[in-house]
Amino acid sequence: MKLSLNALHASMSDPLLDTMNFLNEVTSRYPNAISFAPGRPYDGFFEVADVFRNIRRYLGHLQDHGMPVRAGVYQYGPTAGQIRDLVSASLRDDEGIVVAPESVVVTVGAQEAMVLALRTLFAGPQDVLLVACPCYVGIMGAARLLDIALAPVPERDGQLQPADVEAAIHAERLRGRRPRALYVVPDHANPSGSTMDLDGRYRLLEIAARHELLILEDSPYRLVGSGDRLPALKALDTGQDVVHIGSYSKTVFPGARVGFALADQLVTGVGGVTSLLADEMAKVKSMITVNTPSLSQAVIAGTLLACDGRLSVVSEAAAARYRHAMATTLGELDRRFPAARRDAAGVSWNRPAGGFFLSLRVPFDADNAALQRSAEEFGVLWTPMSYFYPDGAADVTARRSIRLSVSYLEQAQIRAGIGRLARFIEASERNDGE
Amino acid sequence: MKLSLNALHASMSDPLLDTMNFLNEVTSRYPNAISFAPGRPYDGFFEVADVFRNIRRYLGHLQDHGMPVRAGVYQYGPTAGQIRDLVSASLRDDEGIVVAPESVVVTVGAQEAMVLALRTLFAGPQDVLLVACPCYVGIMGAARLLDIALAPVPERDGQLQPADVEAAIHAERLRGRRPRALYVVPDHANPSGSTMDLDGRYRLLEIAARHELLILEDSPYRLVGSGDRLPALKALDTGQDVVHIGSYSKTVFPGARVGFALADQLVTGVGGVTSLLADEMAKVKSMITVNTPSLSQAVIAGTLLACDGRLSVVSEAAAARYRHAMATTLGELDRRFPAARRDAAGVSWNRPAGGFFLSLRVPFDADNAALQRSAEEFGVLWTPMSYFYPDGAADVTARRSIRLSVSYLEQAQIRAGIGRLARFIEASERNDGE
Repeated sequence: MKLSLNALHASMSDPLLDTMNFLNEVTSRYPNAISFAPGRPYDGFFEVADVFRNIRRYLGHLQDHGMPVRAGVYQYGPTAGQIRDLVSASLRDDEGIVVAPESVVVTVGAQEAMVLALRTLFAGPQDVLLVACPCYVGIMGAARLLDIALAPVPERDGQLQPADVEAAIHAERLRGRRPRALYVVPDHANPSGSTMDLDGRYRLLEIAARHELLILEDSPYRLVGSGDRLPALKALDTGQDVVHIGSYSKTVFPGARVGFALADQLVTGVGGVTSLLADEMAKVKSMITVNTPSLSQAVIAGTLLACDGRLSVVSEAAAARYRHAMATTLGELDRRFPAARRDAAGVSWNRPAGGFFLSLRVPFDADNAALQRSAEEFGVLWTPMSYFYPDGAADVTARRSIRLSVSYLEQAQIRAGIGRLARFIEASERNDGE
Repeated sequence: MKLSLNALHASMSDPLLDTMNFLNEVTSRYPNAISFAPGRPYDGFFEVADVFRNIRRYLGHLQDHGMPVRAGVYQYGPTAGQIRDLVSASLRDDEGIVVAPESVVVTVGAQEAMVLALRTLFAGPQDVLLVACPCYVGIMGAARLLDIALAPVPERDGQLQPADVEAAIHAERLRGRRPRALYVVPDHANPSGSTMDLDGRYRLLEIAARHELLILEDSPYRLVGSGDRLPALKALDTGQDVVHIGSYSKTVFPGARVGFALADQLVTGVGGVTSLLADEMAKVKSMITVNTPSLSQAVIAGTLLACDGRLSVVSEAAAARYRHAMATTLGELDRRFPAARRDAAGVSWNRPAGGFFLSLRVPFDADNAALQRSAEEFGVLWTPMSYFYPDGAADVTARRSIRLSVSYLEQAQIRAGIGRLARFIEASERNDGE
């Protein structure tokens, strides 16, 4: 049977997906270009033998505790996860986040955790999700999957401003909508690279509590960041106003696809019966993936056992590598665009202390046509920042910014790549002036 | 923040999930009961060392083909899957299903494949999914997740009758709805254990083509069944009217959580640009799980390489074990309810030649109260068939039938368990007559 796109679900022909496809196509058409595009972790530290060792360690742990060993890898597992106790203990010891194992849902990456949270929390078309903007594409995708409306809250002065969140809450209420939750990546955000300061964290929590706004805190880059971490919002959350989403993709490895949500909110049902938000999310999970692969959970569990839950220690080598990559990138930008002529050139950037990403402002529209030119004529790839706005390139800051990802490149590639990028920017600036 | 169930998405307080929870609770309350409830594969054949060996075999294969080795386990992979060529070749050689790798989407279990198919195909509230009934709970869950309406087509004379499908199509159209697809498990169905005959398969395909009804064919038990397999609907599908859904949970192991969809339907978009339904499904997958764990795909790939794609050969030991379990169960039922007094006792059952499940008709309502009594007083567990009807226990056949799962039990447990079950049935029959 032949199908017509019109007869499929409307959101399948999606500008967001089309732009991402464009990036993938350009990447495959110019294999020799140096790419600041993919947000991939560096894989040079990885050994397959470690995977096997960690699985065996977990099975030994099950045996020591009198639990079925084979089933720990072989069988279907509990929907909410079989390693919730280890996840909970690790977050307590490493992050000061105190949440009982019952409030943990182990997911197929952070992406599934977002879907579960949105599907559970958003009750109808009047519910709207606030998103710090520019915004991770995964949360835009999850919202689109579930036909949930987004309200962007643009970052200002390099950060999400709590006052802007409050203004957005008021604006949405005036439109007759209920601001249900705010999605934010407080540490080394994808795509901007920004990190929220401590005062901002406290103010955001205060606003959330006052307005009954849940915060969806996504945290993938916390342990591969600057080294002096500020407390996670969840660690400061005394009123169960934060659903914390985590991922082992950057600390252990992405090929396991293990993430989690902490959802310790109390849910009151008919007749006063209570459950946890985590229970409700697990019900949704049973309809999507049934359970996170036992095999994947086993290797994460073994890794947590090996370091006594201290993933921050395990991640330090990777974090240091990313800091070094970031410092080199910033140094090369400084060298190519000296402070004296930076303003005149219309070029600026932020200075993340770690993580994968930084934002670069350029003096021309950094759109797909520019990306194509950059790849073809200058051999360098990057991501248009407009991809990360729900409303596309409406805003001039969005249109004239790019995301640089430094995580996957070697030092020599970074040096050569920033050189190419500088030549591209200078050439485009001239074009723009013509 | 405290939440009220009323303020969450409506379908969270769900009768289906509540009944399944009841079964789980009873199971944990009576750990010494013999349980014909769980549809779990037997794990006695499984060795963890085989998992490692198969991952290494796949990595060797990547190396032999000049592909990045570490990334094959470590990294994020393509959304539609990194082992599509191996899946496609295996289905061709083992099942006579000829579908190009481009039409394969590798998923987190068959459950995710169902979600992707429904989310892509169902365009609006007028679209309805026909389901052969009794019906696998997973498809009911996927439909509920996406707020898709179901129209049950009850099995009759132990099979889905194509004429009933056609009648349901007409009835739905009269109601102003579009029957978009039919979900069916043609081989050793969960929960009924029924298998569709060859004539029925051809007639169903003819009806689907005539009425532009897609068939969602789910196939988890095909290779652990009777041994003389009838062709899959997809193998007979000359007009791309079947989306075939598969799972490696019963042939390799459930802890990998790898399934797949074959979706070779051509989709025509704006300006005549064409894509495959698989492409559209992969877009949805990017919003749910991003990609199926590379680690899981690696172990499945290694298994396929080891047997040259002939999973039917690998699965033969397991299939034989299930056939033996089924034969013992049927023999014990024959012995406990001799033909002469079967009718008088109001007890009957079907006779699957393999697979996990059979249906047993009893002369009383096999509801949660009966299950509770069966567990407490007779030490035997089973699943009420009413769980597998979208409309619950409306129908007397649904109310008075139970599902027996034989896959997970040892021979001695089956013999003792059927004895307990017979005593429970006889006692309930007497109660019912009082």
